Amino acid sequence: MNWKNEISAAAGRIAGYAQVTPVMESHSLGLDYPVEMKLEHLQHTGSFKARGAFNTLLSQDVPKAGVVAASGGNHGAAAAYAARSLGHPAKIFVPEIAGPSKIALIKRTGADLSVVPGEYANALTEAQAHEDASGAMQIHAYDAPATVAGQGTCFAEWEAQGLQADTLLIAVGGGGLIAGALAWLQGARKVVAVEPETSCALNAALHAGEPVDVTVSGIAANALGARRIGSICFDLANGMGSVLVSDDAIVQAQQVLWRAHRILVEPAGAAALAALLSGAYTPAPDERVAVLICGGNISPDPLAA
Amino acid sequence: MNWKNEISAAAGRIAGYAQVTPVMESHSLGLDYPVEMKLEHLQHTGSFKARGAFNTLLSQDVPKAGVVAASGGNHGAAAAYAARSLGHPAKIFVPEIAGPSKIALIKRTGADLSVVPGEYANALTEAQAHEDASGAMQIHAYDAPATVAGQGTCFAEWEAQGLQADTLLIAVGGGGLIAGALAWLQGARKVVAVEPETSCALNAALHAGEPVDVTVSGIAANALGARRIGSICFDLANGMGSVLVSDDAIVQAQQVLWRAHRILVEPAGAAALAALLSGAYTPAPDERVAVLICGGNISPDPLAA
Repeated sequence: MNWKNEISAAAGRIAGYAQVTPVMESHSLGLDYPVEMKLEHLQHTGSFKARGAFNTLLSQDVPKAGVVAASGGNHGAAAAYAARSLGHPAKIFVPEIAGPSKIALIKRTGADLSVVPGEYANALTEAQAHEDASGAMQIHAYDAPATVAGQGTCFAEWEAQGLQADTLLIAVGGGGLIAGALAWLQGARKVVAVEPETSCALNAALHAGEPVDVTVSGIAANALGARRIGSICFDLANGMGSVLVSDDAIVQAQQVLWRAHRILVEPAGAAALAALLSGAYTPAPDERVAVLICGGNISPDPLAA
Repeated sequence: MNWKNEISAAAGRIAGYAQVTPVMESHSLGLDYPVEMKLEHLQHTGSFKARGAFNTLLSQDVPKAGVVAASGGNHGAAAAYAARSLGHPAKIFVPEIAGPSKIALIKRTGADLSVVPGEYANALTEAQAHEDASGAMQIHAYDAPATVAGQGTCFAEWEAQGLQADTLLIAVGGGGLIAGALAWLQGARKVVAVEPETSCALNAALHAGEPVDVTVSGIAANALGARRIGSICFDLANGMGSVLVSDDAIVQAQQVLWRAHRILVEPAGAAALAALLSGAYTPAPDERVAVLICGGNISPDPLAA
């Protein structure tokens, strides 16, 4: 696949649907070097997922039965939002760990929502059954080319906004976002995967030499808790850097973002920064670093009605 | 005063101390036109006030007794932050309506903080007494040239970031920020003042033909509740547009910013947008509008330790 072309086409397709998200450079994170940040949590429905959802729906014929998605919450909200924006019905399956904020967010889109016991993989099983029974089109959360190409637009956009960094740190769940980064950057910049110690499907796959099942838990599990890394991501991830962060380090990074910059994010949104703050990743003296702030759907919702 | 020169000098002075804040354009605020936004609430200590504080301290000799400031909260936090950054002691007076979030924010800077009963004007009286007794240098919250020039850097920066708008909507308390806008823009773009119905010192002054005392109350009073508009602002505000918004409209705008973009702000930070959402200001068909998101120190603090 010519990923550069796919991502450029996706960027053209989703222009006017996805939000162009702002970027900033911070010297105030308690580190002795600056950090570039892209505030992708300001995207529609609070995460980068809207990019992949719009690209999927705008690049394929959507059946009358509409769309179906399984999600820890963020992808479901994005799929529901994109479907509503384009006039399609949406059926969303989320695990109960999605939590009240994300469930309320999806309900506000008007989607037909089912909350499934257990973890993300269970929601995916139900979504696949619904796809088979209804003929609805599945928008995969991470392991489909249109999803990856959509997420890749985030990095094309960032480069157009003047990204300087040598190295990007990106939180990983199923791997759609980091696959988009790898697919766009093609080695032009270093990409480092950051996963919670308790939800580390990519790290486990890199160690095993193939995708393997992991158990998932922890505070970021509803966003980063994929049981197995996506195959597209794994194929692109050959030899890449991978670090792990603790839940405590993630909470600390949430606090730093809020206190230093009034950036309020969910645990997954702070995970990449946590790798710098905790020392899980230490840049070389002249290495310029950037972190993608990927999700803002915090629970409890501070403005819950 | 040659304000353009003053503001350009201020911008050079505070570079590397103040945060360059990001900008974005939203089509998702429930309006049938786009809105440019500058996310100035991501500034150090959560509001534009850091600009004026740094400019004041960097343009004048600071006495050994350090600095003193009276503040509804945001200016005090900014003055304390700037003082600490530059190695000066700080004494801050806030009224009790500053609230626990802003009081905790100031305490985290290590400043010597006094909480004064009543409204902002009472804190100002005590700060002036402290200035007289100690020889500390007062950083006025809004009615001093160095403060206004510092706040004006926000608009110089925004223009350099590609601001397109014909019209800027800006929330007004004592008038330091909007004075900075008027001083920088010099009529090149329209500026509209937005005040809460219950804290409207500029609106009252424009109607009276001179600054007059008003009573202040309402949800934004700790940020926008000046008893009397600053004289610098009033002199620059000749003939400008002025609109009022209700507390309900402000709360609604806070919800819209959070739900559409995961931008969490205090009431004052949403006031300018509230003028658009409520119809208090309706742009002409081809008029491009921008709102400055000026403050993010919401209470209760969603991540209070």
